Amino acid sequence: MVFLGEECLFCKIVSGKIPATKLYEDENTLSFLDVYPSAKGHSLVIPKKHYATLLDIPEAELREVMRVVQKIGAAVMKATNAKGFNVLQNNFEAAGQAIHHMHFHIVPRFENDGLKLSFGGAKAEMEELGEWQKRVKKHL
Amino acid sequence: MVFLGEECLFCKIVSGKIPATKLYEDENTLSFLDVYPSAKGHSLVIPKKHYATLLDIPEAELREVMRVVQKIGAAVMKATNAKGFNVLQNNFEAAGQAIHHMHFHIVPRFENDGLKLSFGGAKAEMEELGEWQKRVKKHL
Repeated sequence: MVFLGEECLFCKIVSGKIPATKLYEDENTLSFLDVYPSAKGHSLVIPKKHYATLLDIPEAELREVMRVVQKIGAAVMKATNAKGFNVLQNNFEAAGQAIHHMHFHIVPRFENDGLKLSFGGAKAEMEELGEWQKRVKKHL
Repeated sequence: MVFLGEECLFCKIVSGKIPATKLYEDENTLSFLDVYPSAKGHSLVIPKKHYATLLDIPEAELREVMRVVQKIGAAVMKATNAKGFNVLQNNFEAAGQAIHHMHFHIVPRFENDGLKLSFGGAKAEMEELGEWQKRVKKHL
């Protein structure tokens, strides 16, 4: 994916052109608080380099990002006294990706906090699962 | 986290004691279709070894799992002609984790598919963000 430079909000946060409430920063990775938090302590973790989606980031850089996701997840749990947390990563607009610079959401959770994250779904027929298995395996 | 052996559904899938619609398998990682799919092609990726949450899995094994998340994400997009996909990983019951063997959901998405995954949230006050920044940084 091409580096979007001026147009990417998160690239501007990385370069310091616009401010963010930073939590952690190292050579490759940055974490800061989401300004539209779903819960107090809702954090983001991003690679500093611009990659549009999870399909674009090289494996070695993803490893660095995940190390920070673990670190921030643990810290946010402690800081908020949360009883759990979700890690959510959206790819492409149809999946709700608003900023096209890949990022992980870390959302602290509490019992009966009213947040709805699970999609739900009825139990599938084995036959149908078999059909999708075939189709996915074709692309592996 | 202690290996739960007999009690863990995903450990039973790994050991072959109960069946699953497998998509991919290597030494450390397994992917199979969710039997309660939120969308056709909804897949899971798990480490074969039992770790309860994201906070328990060692970094090197997480890297292996993420490599497979990327691989399955790309294949599911192609197989379903999806316009996007979500990666969701829930930690602890309060966050909706039903099986206490860490796993990533990969959910293919389509425009106007009616799935609700974003939590929403109003824009936060800078002062409040500053307060949460301080609290999280204490635990880093």
